[in-house]
Amino acid sequence: MSLDKVLDTIDASLPTATERLFELLRIPSVSTDPAHAGDVERAADWLVAELRALGADAEKRPTEGHPMVVGHIGDGTPHLMFYGHYDVQPADPLNLWHRDPFDPAVEETAKGKVIRGRGTSDDKGQLMTFVEACRAWIAVNGNLPCRITFFLEGEEESGSPSLVPFLQENADEFRTDLALICDTGLFDDETPAITTMLRGLLGEEITITGPDRDLHSGHFGGAAINPIRVLARIIASLHDETGRITVPGFYEGVPEVSDEMAAQWQALGFDATGFLGDVGLAVPAGEDGRSVLEMIWARPTCEVNGIIGGYTGDGFKTVLPSQASAKISFRLVGAQDPHSIRESFRKMVTDMLPTDCTVAFKAHGASPASVMSTENPAFEKARLALSDEWPNPAAFVGAGGSIPIAGYFKSILGVDSLLVGFGREDDAIHSPNEKYALESFHKGARSWARILDALTR
Amino acid sequence: MSLDKVLDTIDASLPTATERLFELLRIPSVSTDPAHAGDVERAADWLVAELRALGADAEKRPTEGHPMVVGHIGDGTPHLMFYGHYDVQPADPLNLWHRDPFDPAVEETAKGKVIRGRGTSDDKGQLMTFVEACRAWIAVNGNLPCRITFFLEGEEESGSPSLVPFLQENADEFRTDLALICDTGLFDDETPAITTMLRGLLGEEITITGPDRDLHSGHFGGAAINPIRVLARIIASLHDETGRITVPGFYEGVPEVSDEMAAQWQALGFDATGFLGDVGLAVPAGEDGRSVLEMIWARPTCEVNGIIGGYTGDGFKTVLPSQASAKISFRLVGAQDPHSIRESFRKMVTDMLPTDCTVAFKAHGASPASVMSTENPAFEKARLALSDEWPNPAAFVGAGGSIPIAGYFKSILGVDSLLVGFGREDDAIHSPNEKYALESFHKGARSWARILDALTR
Repeated sequence: MSLDKVLDTIDASLPTATERLFELLRIPSVSTDPAHAGDVERAADWLVAELRALGADAEKRPTEGHPMVVGHIGDGTPHLMFYGHYDVQPADPLNLWHRDPFDPAVEETAKGKVIRGRGTSDDKGQLMTFVEACRAWIAVNGNLPCRITFFLEGEEESGSPSLVPFLQENADEFRTDLALICDTGLFDDETPAITTMLRGLLGEEITITGPDRDLHSGHFGGAAINPIRVLARIIASLHDETGRITVPGFYEGVPEVSDEMAAQWQALGFDATGFLGDVGLAVPAGEDGRSVLEMIWARPTCEVNGIIGGYTGDGFKTVLPSQASAKISFRLVGAQDPHSIRESFRKMVTDMLPTDCTVAFKAHGASPASVMSTENPAFEKARLALSDEWPNPAAFVGAGGSIPIAGYFKSILGVDSLLVGFGREDDAIHSPNEKYALESFHKGARSWARILDALTR
Repeated sequence: MSLDKVLDTIDASLPTATERLFELLRIPSVSTDPAHAGDVERAADWLVAELRALGADAEKRPTEGHPMVVGHIGDGTPHLMFYGHYDVQPADPLNLWHRDPFDPAVEETAKGKVIRGRGTSDDKGQLMTFVEACRAWIAVNGNLPCRITFFLEGEEESGSPSLVPFLQENADEFRTDLALICDTGLFDDETPAITTMLRGLLGEEITITGPDRDLHSGHFGGAAINPIRVLARIIASLHDETGRITVPGFYEGVPEVSDEMAAQWQALGFDATGFLGDVGLAVPAGEDGRSVLEMIWARPTCEVNGIIGGYTGDGFKTVLPSQASAKISFRLVGAQDPHSIRESFRKMVTDMLPTDCTVAFKAHGASPASVMSTENPAFEKARLALSDEWPNPAAFVGAGGSIPIAGYFKSILGVDSLLVGFGREDDAIHSPNEKYALESFHKGARSWARILDALTR
């Protein structure tokens, strides 16, 4: 059977595939640092050459910032787009690395072999799992089973400033049947995952003003309103006793997890105690009656990310401050509308103000949740294909944070995204001593071969 | 009558008295700045010479820091101690002064003549009102009507580090019948005041710790406890709906204002609307059913002087912080015990903590209120004497802030303090363009002559 031969080829070529990945890892393509702009170009050139070696019609496409690498290869349906990024985070602080971050090597660890180096897990190693799967497929079959468009970004670690305009200008080229995004992780070392729910994010900064200047708390304390107290009262009122958020209308559009997905999550055997215990906690802090997985994947939140007011230096000053402010964010799920929640939140805060206080609001972004339409049969096909490769069955999972690219593919191109990745929790992405398990790299390539097979059979 | 002659002498010698004050004002005795240590010594020497010129047995007494100026003069009872300080605040920022802060002059203003310069109101001008009263008294009568001990400090603006040990070592010398302290203000331009209630101060810094490190609010938000939310809830709970403080036992020892004092306060015609309006406020923020004067003079408070947690820079970071902290202070009145309130506050906070949070407390001082025993007949005598000098009758008033010296005189020496001063609200003490109304200086000296007369008749 053809798939088996492809998998065998991947197994046999692991050493050469690893050497190829090392070539890419040696290029310090740090996109935020202008001093590395030439390296980002070199990494793009290297990828163009790689894709051309596969037979793709590939080129570096200029943007206002770093170039996109785009390549087309193959024929037939479905037309798949593959997304990854070839830029990396800065390696600082260098003194915390135990080897040169841009001189990668395979190291033995207590948890098996790992590839050590900046960008191994985020995202060069992940990106190359798909390239290696394609290479093996072509080696066995002479061509790919469907048309594939590679879309490799060089600005992901610096906020993707060129991504939206580039997609808008080239929408026809990228309006494919499905996007494959490889920039996420395994559920655990033995359990693959397809991320189908990404929470949205609404940020608000509120500044409460009471007296028109800082006052002496001896002279005015007791008679003058204190904006820190007002702010504390507002923050304390944002959750009720059961952990629910009290902003009116907040829960409109919040779906319950389907029985099917709940069963998948149940089967994951998620270690909530260990998850919280790793950061020194024991008790889930969210809504009563919800599991920790629901809290972080499927339920909306309201968090205070920062607060400041009055004197915060060493020692003590008896100031009664004029102002106090807080940065507050909401994680959104399902069909929650960030704009109407922003309005409702602002009205609630304004309604709580005492006579002598004013409030200024500053908006910090508003993106709805991304919820993949798992009714698309490709999702279940991919899930089963992953389940064939790994010890445990794959699950459709949520992600607490945001991956904006999936939202852009949907909103600009109308394309669903299948988010599959092989990173592990302890990969130390964005940190010193980043690594990627050699098994992630190896079984990642095998996983993509299985998914290509499943989507085109 | 002898008093009239003394008052006439004060009137006649105002120009020379002003010139004498200028000599002292020209010495930049900034006690916090080591570069001015020699100037502080010079100011002390100048005062020693002045007191000796009056006939006092005066000398500079060394301390670990700047010297005390001590002088004894006269015979008979009561034995009075006079306290003032000859050091001044730094003059920075110099560019905001419209003249050299140490080149004093009399200026015409819309509100009459003022003496402009650093230390005019705080406290050299005030200090010299008493010296000039004594000089005039001696000029008329040949001697003073009772024994007087001058105690002039050179470290008041730098925290009085030597004061307590000096008083302890020389307690017998200063154990007088009554202390006169001239470092406070008029109630208003036409109404003198004797400050008989000084609120105490209890400071606490609390730091709440939740997770053992800063977390990503996307990955952990909803499941991990947020210490800012916990802190906000604690702060919000410190007052009830009526503005009362909820710390158990907090109101033990809080007296009601006597009918007599309430009547005096009523007669002051305090402009609560103007007091709050000057800082942009309209509604008193303290306990329901209390007047603004009660709120700032006679009622205890709980204020948050500072709060910080999470990300507080520009923009937004989706951090779920490990810690949040606040500086909280209590103004105390009557017989409230700072130490038992501290314990009660700490227990209340600890009891409110969720399972996964810890709290660290840091103490920032604990001083009880100073309440003068106005039953001492000297207080009413002085009040009537002041009432004779000024357009409006004098009142026993409270002060929201603390003047620690009165507390030390009571606790170390067992001596009551009569706090009388002639500063005005707009004197800009500690600020650029500090001034002292020429009327304050002139009528201040006359007021002390009347008080000396009243206390010794």
